[in-house]
Amino acid sequence: MKLPAGLQKVIEQFEKLPGIGPKSAQRLGFYLLHVPETELEKMGTAFIELKKNTVLCKLCHNVSEADVCLICSDEQRDKTVMCVVEQPMDLLAIEKSDNFKGLYHVLHGAISPLNNIGPEQLFLLDLKDRITSGNIHELILATNSTMEGEATAMFLKKMINDLEITSLRVSRIGLGLPAGADIEYADETTLSRALAGRGEY
Amino acid sequence: MKLPAGLQKVIEQFEKLPGIGPKSAQRLGFYLLHVPETELEKMGTAFIELKKNTVLCKLCHNVSEADVCLICSDEQRDKTVMCVVEQPMDLLAIEKSDNFKGLYHVLHGAISPLNNIGPEQLFLLDLKDRITSGNIHELILATNSTMEGEATAMFLKKMINDLEITSLRVSRIGLGLPAGADIEYADETTLSRALAGRGEY
Repeated sequence: MKLPAGLQKVIEQFEKLPGIGPKSAQRLGFYLLHVPETELEKMGTAFIELKKNTVLCKLCHNVSEADVCLICSDEQRDKTVMCVVEQPMDLLAIEKSDNFKGLYHVLHGAISPLNNIGPEQLFLLDLKDRITSGNIHELILATNSTMEGEATAMFLKKMINDLEITSLRVSRIGLGLPAGADIEYADETTLSRALAGRGEY
Repeated sequence: MKLPAGLQKVIEQFEKLPGIGPKSAQRLGFYLLHVPETELEKMGTAFIELKKNTVLCKLCHNVSEADVCLICSDEQRDKTVMCVVEQPMDLLAIEKSDNFKGLYHVLHGAISPLNNIGPEQLFLLDLKDRITSGNIHELILATNSTMEGEATAMFLKKMINDLEITSLRVSRIGLGLPAGADIEYADETTLSRALAGRGEY
């Protein structure tokens, strides 16, 4: 059966989104038929205007409305600690944990030779300038606990060691058991890292 | 952290959709930041124009671009058989199975006293007119195999029996084991219905 063109178009747009398959796209399309016209207009406008006032902070490369984001321009934040993350969503997750009051640096990816992503494709090299020009005492490498994230952390550690700044300490975010986890069900890599990363109790 | 207003709005729109939680909405919002502006515009326009040329067929109430849908106006279809379904997506699923060449009637829901949905809230009573004015020999009740679907099928059967049209046969879509199912794992209701609905072999 041929669907009405308008409905078909909406379904095709949904299908383009990650994690939404053809069946879900169809369900969402039919669902929207029950939504009032004014709501659909709000929705459409939101998509069209998404990038109008959204830029990347020129310092930390987080998403921002201004040239310099709210975190970088906040005088209350500790400018001697910097946390390096892969994506803006990682930054958001750390902010939500409400335990870190320093600055950030968002790489927008991780080194991944298989996908042709090297240091030049990331906001990685300008991190050097931020460190040498700033007054950073600790750099926390909070890249993911994946192959790519580990490779990026190792690259960063080498890059920073080569700068030979004696006042700068480089740390890696803690690796181990997540909250609520059973040791019985933890995988071998997690357990090895948890043992290696054991702390005073 | 306060997200840029444009991004926040898009995330809020995604959150309104069924089956998309706050975390998925966030992920989709950030994903769209990487999508070119022209694509976002296409997407937004699709939502705004969804209902512009989408109406319900005045006969079967399926989604349609014209007053009478392509199925109802198709001269090739068998106008003596009619299949009653709850939703347009059910119709679509049956059309995809490519085994039914008759007409449809879409109720747009099922009787559900708990949700205050009675026969008056559905396209149920005008089905009577379609049957009495038409030349229907068989009415297939293809409502869902749920409490509400069964209640609706029973209501329809009674309504049609009261019309006392001797030439009209009422049938219920087959209930039993789905394709690929193990009897071992089938629930009791499915098995009872499968036994009751057994056929000549």
